[in-house]
Amino acid sequence: MNPPGAGRHFLAEIHEQPAALLALLERLDEFTAVGRACAERPPSALRLVAHGSSDAAASYGVYAFGLLPGWTALRDSISLTVYYGADLDFSSSVVVGLSQSGRTPDVVSYVERARARGALTVAITNDPGSALASAAELMLPLEAGEEQSVAATKTFMNQLAALALLAGAVAGREAEIAEGIRATAQLLEDSIPELEAAVDPVATAFAYVGRMYVIGRGVEFGTAREIALKLTETCRVAAEPLTSTDLAHGPIAALDAMFPVWTIASHDESLPALVEAASRVREAGATIVVSGSAAAEVEGAAWRLPVPKAPIPVLSPLLSVVPGQLFAAALAQAKGLDPDRPERLTKVTLAQ
Amino acid sequence: MNPPGAGRHFLAEIHEQPAALLALLERLDEFTAVGRACAERPPSALRLVAHGSSDAAASYGVYAFGLLPGWTALRDSISLTVYYGADLDFSSSVVVGLSQSGRTPDVVSYVERARARGALTVAITNDPGSALASAAELMLPLEAGEEQSVAATKTFMNQLAALALLAGAVAGREAEIAEGIRATAQLLEDSIPELEAAVDPVATAFAYVGRMYVIGRGVEFGTAREIALKLTETCRVAAEPLTSTDLAHGPIAALDAMFPVWTIASHDESLPALVEAASRVREAGATIVVSGSAAAEVEGAAWRLPVPKAPIPVLSPLLSVVPGQLFAAALAQAKGLDPDRPERLTKVTLAQ
Repeated sequence: MNPPGAGRHFLAEIHEQPAALLALLERLDEFTAVGRACAERPPSALRLVAHGSSDAAASYGVYAFGLLPGWTALRDSISLTVYYGADLDFSSSVVVGLSQSGRTPDVVSYVERARARGALTVAITNDPGSALASAAELMLPLEAGEEQSVAATKTFMNQLAALALLAGAVAGREAEIAEGIRATAQLLEDSIPELEAAVDPVATAFAYVGRMYVIGRGVEFGTAREIALKLTETCRVAAEPLTSTDLAHGPIAALDAMFPVWTIASHDESLPALVEAASRVREAGATIVVSGSAAAEVEGAAWRLPVPKAPIPVLSPLLSVVPGQLFAAALAQAKGLDPDRPERLTKVTLAQ
Repeated sequence: MNPPGAGRHFLAEIHEQPAALLALLERLDEFTAVGRACAERPPSALRLVAHGSSDAAASYGVYAFGLLPGWTALRDSISLTVYYGADLDFSSSVVVGLSQSGRTPDVVSYVERARARGALTVAITNDPGSALASAAELMLPLEAGEEQSVAATKTFMNQLAALALLAGAVAGREAEIAEGIRATAQLLEDSIPELEAAVDPVATAFAYVGRMYVIGRGVEFGTAREIALKLTETCRVAAEPLTSTDLAHGPIAALDAMFPVWTIASHDESLPALVEAASRVREAGATIVVSGSAAAEVEGAAWRLPVPKAPIPVLSPLLSVVPGQLFAAALAQAKGLDPDRPERLTKVTLAQ
């Protein structure tokens, strides 16, 4: 049913993530230097711009910068600047453009315009020779190695780590964050084999699922966005990411026994909201899959995919995303789809 | 099949929207005064906080403030402040809390904390006696009249108008925006009967659809979010809002002939991106429904629900949302569901 070698790169690159994290840490000095440069001109707002998986990482960035240096970060509207030519004040802004390929056209355009209007611009990309790297004043490499699967995994992982390192460096805490990432890489290395075995029966059970919600909150909202995107692009499931509170404001009405909910539960301050949302899901009769370090805290889950507790809570998403990646690989396999080459997608998206 | 009177309030309140807009305009002086107060202390960032339909309106607010006074507005993370206690600087912020009921708990908590930390806080609510109105320094009424349907329509409409009026007042353009809203109310009044007839065959064709994307960009992204939410809560369709560019970065892979796409095409600077995205959707074999003033510009649509061109482009969403509301009413009717009382929802959502 599956084409020969289907998903080979996708699965291999999931396994390469601990090594990718260690490679990123080799560039700690550069993150420290860029963090210091940002801290010298503290922005009124740090603007993150990205699409796709990189934009899911940007959602994480909002929390990394909010929690570490206490900076207000936002996923900025690209269209206001690139299409509408809005008259925004960039003079006290730091802009972080995220793109694995460094070739996403409107991210590059945004960074060019923001730089021309006085923003301090930083590119985070896996290709230091890319247009995005040239457009920005400062460049930080992802160091994930070449990613051959169209569906991103290790570049997303290293975007999370890069944002945590940069936010940590702004706060003067880069050594602590780097040590946490190193420990996280080891935890990942140790837990991937067991998780890989654990997702198989879930994938078998979900082979005919057409729609899902993926819920997370706070630092895990970006994880929810990334897992939903993986399921959508590699498994053709209509998987929508929601915060636990968004779920209660409407979407809960659509749930039924054929509409499962993936819940990401980590040990942090947003856990009570998540646990409450899961109880509403259960009352609606929907199947719950729960991943994350606090998977045991969610009652009535049909499937649990726990991960180790992160050494620093802000690093939880580096662990929480992996069950979703492995589940996507297993479900694509069960459905005869090739996550390395999803239909109608290419590695570099040039859409406006 | 439908319970007697099902959707009676929902449909009536859609029809009441032109009158609701005119009632709001009676309060123009208050919007002008609050706009002036905001302009006196121009914020480094205007923070919008809301959930559900109000949060869809907040997405519109990002564009209203970006385009009219050229201010950076963001849908702020509520959890960073309310759950994580992040150490953010609110001293040069304006906060706008949006809640129809004025009782959404974490929006109220956020506004209380932001005010205590020096932000200028503004509540926009349909209940001037609510907790949100008390929590904020300044209050602007929605004047939509009591909304009896659980699924919001006229309060959403007036939130859009309120944000446009406030952003206009900050820019000293409140008279022009008010005149535009008055003209828009007349255009709505004139076009609702024809639109109501036009959605019926689309609803019949979509009676068995389980999942949809709703795409919009720029000023229409909030509209896409609101239409998707209406379809989800009143029709139990898994409808996900996406920008036209997000669609190309993954979700396009999931489309097929059973996965239709609702496209919102208005005459503005983001239209080319939207038209390009629609051509990708068509190549994927998915059915296209197109609404908006530029509905004729999207080739290959199976269904077109055009609306009149707004008198000022930034007011387009006030017209574009109505075909989605009417379609939700018709589809709920076709499916035997009651949009006045969706399962598991109440008018005031108290979820954390």
